[in-house]
This record gives sequence, C-alpha cells and structure tokens, in this order.
Amino acid sequence: MNSIKKILIIGGNAAGCAAAAKARRVNPFAEIQILESGQFISTGTCEIPYVISGEIESSDKLIFNTPASFKSGKNIDVLLYHKAESIDRKQKLVNARNLIDNSLNQFKYDALILATGSVPVILPQFPENLSNVFYLKSVQELKRFESFNKIFEVKKIAVIGSGYIGLEFADVFSQKGTEVTIFEKETRLMPNSEKQISFLLEDILKKNNVSFYTSVHNFVASRTDDKINHIKFDGRILEYDAYLITAGFKPNSGLAQNAGLDLGSNGAIKVDTKLKTSDHFIYAAGDNTLVINAVNNRPFYCPSAALAHNFGHIAGANAAGGNMTAKPIVRNLSVKIFDKFYSQVGMTSDEALLSNLHFQTVSETMLNKLSLMKSSTEMFGKILFEKDTKRILGASFLGGEEISGFADLIAHFIRLKLSADLLSEIDYNYTPPLSPLKNILSVLGRKIKKNIFS
Amino acid sequence: MNSIKKILIIGGNAAGCAAAAKARRVNPFAEIQILESGQFISTGTCEIPYVISGEIESSDKLIFNTPASFKSGKNIDVLLYHKAESIDRKQKLVNARNLIDNSLNQFKYDALILATGSVPVILPQFPENLSNVFYLKSVQELKRFESFNKIFEVKKIAVIGSGYIGLEFADVFSQKGTEVTIFEKETRLMPNSEKQISFLLEDILKKNNVSFYTSVHNFVASRTDDKINHIKFDGRILEYDAYLITAGFKPNSGLAQNAGLDLGSNGAIKVDTKLKTSDHFIYAAGDNTLVINAVNNRPFYCPSAALAHNFGHIAGANAAGGNMTAKPIVRNLSVKIFDKFYSQVGMTSDEALLSNLHFQTVSETMLNKLSLMKSSTEMFGKILFEKDTKRILGASFLGGEEISGFADLIAHFIRLKLSADLLSEIDYNYTPPLSPLKNILSVLGRKIKKNIFS
Repeated sequence: MNSIKKILIIGGNAAGCAAAAKARRVNPFAEIQILESGQFISTGTCEIPYVISGEIESSDKLIFNTPASFKSGKNIDVLLYHKAESIDRKQKLVNARNLIDNSLNQFKYDALILATGSVPVILPQFPENLSNVFYLKSVQELKRFESFNKIFEVKKIAVIGSGYIGLEFADVFSQKGTEVTIFEKETRLMPNSEKQISFLLEDILKKNNVSFYTSVHNFVASRTDDKINHIKFDGRILEYDAYLITAGFKPNSGLAQNAGLDLGSNGAIKVDTKLKTSDHFIYAAGDNTLVINAVNNRPFYCPSAALAHNFGHIAGANAAGGNMTAKPIVRNLSVKIFDKFYSQVGMTSDEALLSNLHFQTVSETMLNKLSLMKSSTEMFGKILFEKDTKRILGASFLGGEEISGFADLIAHFIRLKLSADLLSEIDYNYTPPLSPLKNILSVLGRKIKKNIFS
Repeated sequence: MNSIKKILIIGGNAAGCAAAAKARRVNPFAEIQILESGQFISTGTCEIPYVISGEIESSDKLIFNTPASFKSGKNIDVLLYHKAESIDRKQKLVNARNLIDNSLNQFKYDALILATGSVPVILPQFPENLSNVFYLKSVQELKRFESFNKIFEVKKIAVIGSGYIGLEFADVFSQKGTEVTIFEKETRLMPNSEKQISFLLEDILKKNNVSFYTSVHNFVASRTDDKINHIKFDGRILEYDAYLITAGFKPNSGLAQNAGLDLGSNGAIKVDTKLKTSDHFIYAAGDNTLVINAVNNRPFYCPSAALAHNFGHIAGANAAGGNMTAKPIVRNLSVKIFDKFYSQVGMTSDEALLSNLHFQTVSETMLNKLSLMKSSTEMFGKILFEKDTKRILGASFLGGEEISGFADLIAHFIRLKLSADLLSEIDYNYTPPLSPLKNILSVLGRKIKKNIFS
C-alpha cells in the first residue's frame, strides 16, 4: 500500500510554518496540515516592540503569511482557531477543539510535528484577562494593546521583569515619551547576565530616566472589576496606566506531556538529533523543545525565533522523509537597550558554574573608536575560557552596533572550539570613524594568552 | 668588551615610535635615538580627515607624543629636523643633515631601524609648494591647510584621485558644506576595488551631490605665481579654491636604496620574518617595508598605520636583542564614505588574477536589518574562494557599522584557511534593530557550500 503521507503540524508560528514549507519542498505529494489555535499564522514576535516604537509601520506588517497564501502558494492547509487537546499515539490522531463552534475534531497523521512554542510565565497577581494587563507575546495581544492605548493613552507603564524583553520594551516605551518603571524580583537587573552587565544597565536606565526597583517581593496588585488600580510593595502605593508583564517564557508542552512524551527538567520536549521525540512518529521544534548546547553537549532551553525557524526547517524535512541533522547550538542573543546593544554568547558565568566547568574570565572596558573621535563611546566585553583546553565558553558585550560582529565571531570560536588566544592574531580593521586602533577582542585575546601561558 | 647597545631609528611616526618604545622595554640600558626630519614625532595620519570634519577637536590632538615626553618617560632621545642622508654600513653610521643650521652630523649605531614611512605620489602638475595644493599626508600640512582655509575659505575643492583617502576626504569636505569634485584617471572610482563596489560608490557620490569625473587623462593645470588658477581637460575649464591630491603612496626608501639594501619591485624594503633587511644590522618596518601576504605567502606592499605600529614593535624588540617574529598578514582596510562603510579584506579579484589563483566568487545584496525596520539599509558583500581548498581569498563589504565585524571574521577565516562553508554554520545573533534574521555571511556561506559540492 503506497498511501499519501499525512504530515500534521500543531502550531503555526516560526517553527510550524518553517516545518510546513520545508516538508512541502521535500515531499511535493504529502498532505500537509497546520492546526493553529489563534487568529493568525506566521507572525513576528521579536518585532513587537518595534511596532510600538514606530520603527515598524503597523502591527499588520508582523503577519508574514496567511492561510490563503499557504494554500495557494504551497498547497498547505491551515486551520485557524483549532486547539489541539490530545494526541492518540496508537491511532496516530490528534483531537482538536474548533474554538468557534466548540466541536471536537480528529486529525490523522503519519508524521506529527509539535511546534507549540512557548507561553509567557503568568504572574497570579496579573491575570491576562484584565484590560490594563499585557504580556505582549503575540500580535493578537499587540492589537489589543493598540486599541487600549487609543482609548486610554498609556502615559505611565509598569514593566514587571527585567530580562531581555522587559528592557527592550522599557527602551521603546521610554523613547516615545511613556514614563517607565521596571520591577525586578532578583537583586539586579537582567539577573541572568554577568554581574557587570547589570551594573552597566543600571547606569543606562538612570541616564534615560527609567525608574527601577530590584528585590521586589511581596508584591500586591489591587484590582477592581476588570483592571489593576495600583500596586503595593514595601508600603509604597504606585499607580500605572498599564502593566506589562515580562517575567519570562516557558515551553508550551502540556500536550506533549499528556501524550507521555519525554520532557526535560524544565518541561521542554526532548528530541534526538533528527528532532524526533520519544515517539518515532512525532517531531518537535521551536520554543517548546530542548536543543543541545554546543558548550557542554547537554540539552538546554533556548527560546529564539531564529532557532525556531532553523529547527522547524529540519523537523519538517525529516517528517517528510528527508534526513537533516540538528547540530548543537551556541546561544547568541542580542538586544537593543537605549543607545547600547547587549550581546550574550554561549554560557554566562552562572551557567558555567552550574555546569561544573572550570573557567576563568577576562574583561575590558574600552572606547569603541579612537578616543579622539567625539562619537566614540564606551564598550564592555567579557570572555569566559577554559585554561586547559584554551576554548571559549561564553562572552558578553555591551556597546555599539559593532558588538554584533564580535558576538558572531565568538559564537564561531565556541562552536569550533578554537583556541582563545587566536583572538589576538586576527588582522582587525582600523579606521577612526568605525573601529579603534586596538580591537577589544585583540586585547581580551592577549589577556587570555598571558593567562594561559602563566 | 661589553659596551652599551646603540639603537638608532630613522623616522618618528607610527613604526619608529613603536620600535623605540618596545626597544626600551626589551633593553633598559640601550641608547635609543630617533632622527625625525619633520617638526613632530608620533602623529596621526589616518585621523587627518576627522580634524577637518570637526570629529576631532584640533590638529594638535594628532600629536600623541613629544621629544620631551619620550625623553622623560622612556629615556629615548629624539632629534627633530634631522634628515638622514646616507648610511655607511661598514662603519655603521648614519649621516644626517640638521635642517635648521644645515650641518651634517654622524650617528653611530649597533642596530639601525628604518621607519621612514611612505610619501604621497606627487603629480607634476601639482607641485607641493603651491599655496592651494595639498597632499594632507602630515599634521604639518594639515596645519598649513587650516591656515590657508582661515584666510581664503575653501568653498570648492578638487580631489585628484579616488582611492580610500580621496573618498574619505570627499566625505568630510562635503559634509561640512564644501563643494567637492573628484577626478579619477582610471575608468571607475576606487579602481583597486571590486567593480561592483565602484558602481555602488558612484551612487553614493551622486546621492550626496559630489561631482566626479573618471578616465581623466591629459589633465592641464594652469598656474600663476604660487597657485593653481584652474584645470583644463577635454576642453573644460574648471576652477577650485583648493586642490587636494590623493594619488596614492609610495615607500620612502631612497635611503635604503642608496645604501644598497634589497628592495622589492615597487621599491619597498625587503625584510625577513625578524624584520631584518639584507644587512644584518639594519631592520625596517612600516610603510617603507614589504610584508608577507597571508593569502599567497608572497611579499606585498600594504601601507597601514595599524600594521606600522605592530611591525615597528617587532623591529624594535629584535633590534634590542629580543626575538619576535612577524606573521604573514591579511590586509583588512575599512573606510567611511558618507553614510556607508567599505571594507576590503584579503585579495581583490584583480589581485587574485594577478597571483594566478583560481577562484570563484559569490555576492549578495541584502538589507542589514529586518526589512520591516524603517532604519534598515542595503548592504553588499562579495567573497572570493578557492573551490579545491575551500579557503577564502578575499572579501568586500559595503554597508553599515556591522561590516567591521564581518571583515574581521573573514580576516580570521583567511588567516586560518578555514573552510568557507563554515560561514553558514555560525550561530549569528538576531534582534530587529541590530541584525537581520538571515545574516549575509550565512547566505554567502550557503552559496559557497552549494558551489563546492556541485
């Protein structure tokens, strides 16, 4: 029996859409279906802050594809408002609720791809259904914010959580004249970064008139009817027009868990190098899935649109009969924070300690151009390395646009396990309006060399 | 006999000063002397355009050290206005003219370092001694230009030559409101670049209202008394307030030539990996010296302040009894041209052809950020590679500040002869205001991979 292969994909964002498109290229005859619980497929998430800043024209621009374009362009069927509720692995079918008419429907598969992404960590004091509480993790919610803002004009906003996303939003809101206050439960801003970065970020926020509180515990939100009226902590009562919650993400893996698939410690789905789960017929990719960390070759959780795209691609290829392999990855995250960019590559000191790696660090603060140039600004760089193997484990940078290339160069060193002292042997370019006579990577490389041979 | 070592250095700019400082660190007891024919030592040259633009406060800022500071800080003797005229290699002494009193003096050495740098290519129609003709290769000349500009206010300037320096000056003059016209004798702008770069540069100049003429031959300059009145070519008569000549550099190696030292084909001094010339007691470093090209391991001429500094360092160490080795270098030059930066790394297509290398190229034009971002701009990248060895021979980029890191990454690939297809396996960072979802290096790397395996 030579039946047509049915590929079913749950989730229609970065990983799901990449998987569908690649599956179609690998297998022109397969039946490919996407079930999406929301109103849109193929939307941008990283880009949401830049709709608010006006850098991106409108929230509609973040909808990159539609069910119609997927059908006509790639013969892929998309069902919106369909929420998968359970997987029958024996029968190879998925039960999904039609959220419009509440009917429960069955979808058969030969290969299933779980691309269910991540969900924001919900803080119980800030339920999602309140009118002035926003998590801003989806275009749908962005549109709700835009409508709210049109009516109530948000002039003061509280940002709860100071990770990448919190600081990114603090930047864009502040730039457009909104008064921003950040609340962080840990003792320092961006608690997952190197300590020096936290201190530098404090300076940036102060310079840009963003208020912040750290070590914020026993937080009480007072609400009436459908909104938060004020928040209280340490005897202070503070009032805001809107509350933006950026307390992190967690894998959206309930469906996989209920189906009995193997999960990792934080609840993300375990996969092999073919992105196969513990079920031979089920693949997973994106923010719901663990990836392998190139530094220690162990699974870790690294939500990222770029990764979701690449790994969705691989899952789609393999589900359609291809044979692609996912390589261990080097986390390389960047974020704009006011006039600076922050990049974190590989492991932080805290993560390296948790991994029982024996490492040393070098760091340096330098001007990003010749000191005589009025436009030169300070940049900070820190590199973690192993003395024995000479390899780099991680790095952090805070500076101008130049840090993008530095981060990519370090990502390459980490992946190939190149000797860190080679950093001092690169022929760096020099021209006064672009680069300094001594590149920070060269200086850090020399420090590492000294350390290795001492 | 255990006499104190005498180290004599001819030339007090980047290479000479670096050599002197390093020699002092290696040998605390040596007698170290610098002979400098000009008024200053330790001046910036690459930075001259940015004094004119106002990015650097004043021309005095380009004088980084003085004879007094070298004496008090490092016990190094500097003699200004001393022009070396000949070397007596047998007696190990240098005859130098005191330009103040015209006396000829002798300086003995145990080790001699030639750091005589480069001189601009002088165009016979534009003698240096005319009041409105400038080569702007030294701080002295910059000061002369500043005085001239104070009196005559330069509103229209002709820039003769469209290499790096010509375009850099065109940029800064134009930005401050001076009307700029560029004259290039070759058929295209920046004739030593890839052809595509020339075309892109044309667009940039047009957009910025800089006039330019290419294929300018039979150029006649009409002069009276002490200045150029106008220039004529192809029947046109054109008049400018000042004439800036940027027709390239050549090694300042007359002294070495007269002393019978081995020179390369373009007149630059040949040295070994210890930076020793063909005379056991004479070293050379900087713009007067050949370096080894890491791509083909052959000597080539690569004037650059950063190289002069690094190689001066090595020559100084070895002259003082140390043992440092100069490695082959990857040329990595960048320049700002209006709102773009141009970087050229390794070999250009023309140079690779001349070197009889069998190479192929890939190129790509992309936006430097997510296309939805209003601030995204176009960037161009081109990579030359050998199909057999998979190694990269060279690359050119034109884009925003991000190209600095790209150029450095490619310089590293070239030096280590890394397989070019590895470019597609780097975990590039992504964040909308800094970087695109698909990095241009990743796209170029994939194209190379396809080519290699086809």
